[in-house]
Amino acid sequence: MKRILPFLLALPLISMAQTDDAANIKKISNEILRNGKAYELLYQLTKQVGGRLAGSPQFAKAVQWGKATMEKNGADKVFLQECMVPHWVRGGQDKAVIIEVDKTKTSRVLDVLALGNSLGSGTVTAQVLAVADFDELEKRKDEVKGKIVYYNNAFDPTNVKTFVSYGQAGIYRRSGPSRAAKYGAVGVMIRSLTESTANDPHTGGMAYMDSFPKIPAIAVGPRDADEVWALSKKSTFTMSMTTNGHFLPDTIGHNVIAELTGTEFPNEYITVGGHLDSWDVNEGAHDDGAGVVQTIEVMRTLYAIGYKPKRTIRFVLFANEENGLRGGAKYAEAAKANNEKHIFGLESDAGGFTPRGFSVSVNKEQMAKLQSWLPLLFPYGTTEFTNDGGGADVGPLMRLGTPVGELLPDPQRYFDVHHARSDVFENVNRRELLLGAVNMAALVYLLDKYGL
Amino acid sequence: MKRILPFLLALPLISMAQTDDAANIKKISNEILRNGKAYELLYQLTKQVGGRLAGSPQFAKAVQWGKATMEKNGADKVFLQECMVPHWVRGGQDKAVIIEVDKTKTSRVLDVLALGNSLGSGTVTAQVLAVADFDELEKRKDEVKGKIVYYNNAFDPTNVKTFVSYGQAGIYRRSGPSRAAKYGAVGVMIRSLTESTANDPHTGGMAYMDSFPKIPAIAVGPRDADEVWALSKKSTFTMSMTTNGHFLPDTIGHNVIAELTGTEFPNEYITVGGHLDSWDVNEGAHDDGAGVVQTIEVMRTLYAIGYKPKRTIRFVLFANEENGLRGGAKYAEAAKANNEKHIFGLESDAGGFTPRGFSVSVNKEQMAKLQSWLPLLFPYGTTEFTNDGGGADVGPLMRLGTPVGELLPDPQRYFDVHHARSDVFENVNRRELLLGAVNMAALVYLLDKYGL
Repeated sequence: MKRILPFLLALPLISMAQTDDAANIKKISNEILRNGKAYELLYQLTKQVGGRLAGSPQFAKAVQWGKATMEKNGADKVFLQECMVPHWVRGGQDKAVIIEVDKTKTSRVLDVLALGNSLGSGTVTAQVLAVADFDELEKRKDEVKGKIVYYNNAFDPTNVKTFVSYGQAGIYRRSGPSRAAKYGAVGVMIRSLTESTANDPHTGGMAYMDSFPKIPAIAVGPRDADEVWALSKKSTFTMSMTTNGHFLPDTIGHNVIAELTGTEFPNEYITVGGHLDSWDVNEGAHDDGAGVVQTIEVMRTLYAIGYKPKRTIRFVLFANEENGLRGGAKYAEAAKANNEKHIFGLESDAGGFTPRGFSVSVNKEQMAKLQSWLPLLFPYGTTEFTNDGGGADVGPLMRLGTPVGELLPDPQRYFDVHHARSDVFENVNRRELLLGAVNMAALVYLLDKYGL
Repeated sequence: MKRILPFLLALPLISMAQTDDAANIKKISNEILRNGKAYELLYQLTKQVGGRLAGSPQFAKAVQWGKATMEKNGADKVFLQECMVPHWVRGGQDKAVIIEVDKTKTSRVLDVLALGNSLGSGTVTAQVLAVADFDELEKRKDEVKGKIVYYNNAFDPTNVKTFVSYGQAGIYRRSGPSRAAKYGAVGVMIRSLTESTANDPHTGGMAYMDSFPKIPAIAVGPRDADEVWALSKKSTFTMSMTTNGHFLPDTIGHNVIAELTGTEFPNEYITVGGHLDSWDVNEGAHDDGAGVVQTIEVMRTLYAIGYKPKRTIRFVLFANEENGLRGGAKYAEAAKANNEKHIFGLESDAGGFTPRGFSVSVNKEQMAKLQSWLPLLFPYGTTEFTNDGGGADVGPLMRLGTPVGELLPDPQRYFDVHHARSDVFENVNRRELLLGAVNMAALVYLLDKYGL
């Protein structure tokens, strides 16, 4: 099997030209590892603000917190960028109970969460059709009518890069409900998108296709999923699922934007950001409290060491990544309207774990330039640049032609907590979080100094 | 600042000769990530055996567990290698109370653990002399007599490789007691060797110098350490410390050794191992349950995929790393006595975290060969071979001239749990643990196929 590999061969010393850069990056790293505030800021955001889905009162509180925090940490200016955001609410306690097993009146409560954006319909009771995947659904489409479809599709554990597994399995969350509704299903349950050994269910965004009924949709914890699947092999059974999700009218939300003004090219922008919103069921610590506080940490650090950027560096807390991407879209829309020149958009939205590299969307010459910086970044954890695209919030900027990228933290634990109740402050490690900021700040320094 | 860097430059494809190896390593990885037992075995070792300091009944139980588990997982043969081990016992509850602050009768209980191998002397009450480091101790040596010396020396947070900080700070645990006893101290307390945000104290081995009194020695939790240090800047205070550590007579211990017999060169040995003992205060999950179950996982996997090694591969669970290294010494002693030809000694004893590389002790030609394998290992996490030496248990083998190495997992969280009560099963992530075994197995495969 041939594999494309990113690098390699011994290069004993960094070049003379890079010596100053190495010293400056070491200064950045020392400042963050000695005096970093990201962990304490994350405590504030997770414990004092909490879960903060777009449209919620907590999100509005997060905006005020973000603005005040940016102002205190070195910004030349801070402003709010208004955008309309969706306002989905869970509306109550999600429930699922297996109420009848093979005519014996046994019952079993499952740990579930309604999928984000799904519409509740109170309690639905129906026989369960458990399928391994869409292939089995298609084969058994004549059996679907009037039933609750359960998709057992799991992560492929053999992908070292777990985001590949997420990409593959994610389609069940996004499209599973409508694909079952097409054949007359009255509800859908998916196996949570995780390889966690815990039973927490994992929510996340879904979208209905307009041509089919908008049936309720839930995710079940992976241990319960194992039991449901085993049960389906032994007997038929009925399930009662209760959901209450619905949309309130769109509300006003805000991107929070801070700037360090460029000294040479103030009209050239480098964007660094994470998203301020989170799901409602957790503290959004890794997703994306980590990206938020790392963004602020990069700004604080450049200010603290007295760095004067050539270009204007924008630090953006995006308004609505989880269920709409309205913040990222608004930011790019304004950039276009104002005819801004954007050099790079960098995002952190893959968790506060030890950094291993950056995923980017750049051309060949730009990639060569990034690769030439690897010797400078390697001592801090960055071992590769992969051309696998940037993050969601800088996507709209990318579509305007801006090179973008995303921090690639170690991905093994991310899907243990992603969109689950367990995404809390206690599951973030201080040093891992700070090291992410170190690598982001080092890359921003190089982008500012050399352009791309 | 000049830095020596390990590699770099684009190499788009692995060589044709490596294509088969890439396929075989992928097969190894898939087997481990799909069917790996390491996590379940770790559950058994941590929860059913528990803490297992050399000489303890739990250690004897661990030996029986190790033997039975190796026999069930593909070994051609399993045998026990007897060695005498020390038998230190904590002897009771370690305590430290600040009993008098500046003549006001306030008291404060500190969270402490006696250092391993230290000798208890019941309760000692004395004024505390708090010093930043050995330099301050030397400057203030005339004040030491009759006091309890507290060393506030902390980890240097700026080292990305936390083992460097451990190496620097570790001297306070190992030698701090005797260096204070030299000037008449009656007890020693050190700041725990950790950067953890929690307050758990961290024990670990120390050694007395014979020329000075063997005074009691404890480690204090880092949050309590902060308070003690702050207090010392404000006032004088007295502390009462209670310890009961002592040695029972040496007892018989065992290395547990399994073999996959070589088909071409059965008299050439590759050793893979971790240590079976742990401290008494925790489950020894990362230290070194992880290394133990990864060692067994490598064996299980090579057997499961039907791999027939050319050379004999030895899987060794060492008897006594923490407070004596008698198991590692015995293994090398037997290798020498039997005139065995050892190709490589590989150890895992730095935690069950996502692998990042290997630290080795090899010559230049051997390093070049290892580097040539980087493209094969990179997709699984190995990004570097550093010539920083192997682990403790393969040290005696190294001193016989054998090249050795140690898995380098991501080191950011290791010292949060190392030798603390929090080194429990719940703090090990299944995928991170398995990926360590993947990289070890891949390296063993290459060492077996090509030698070094």
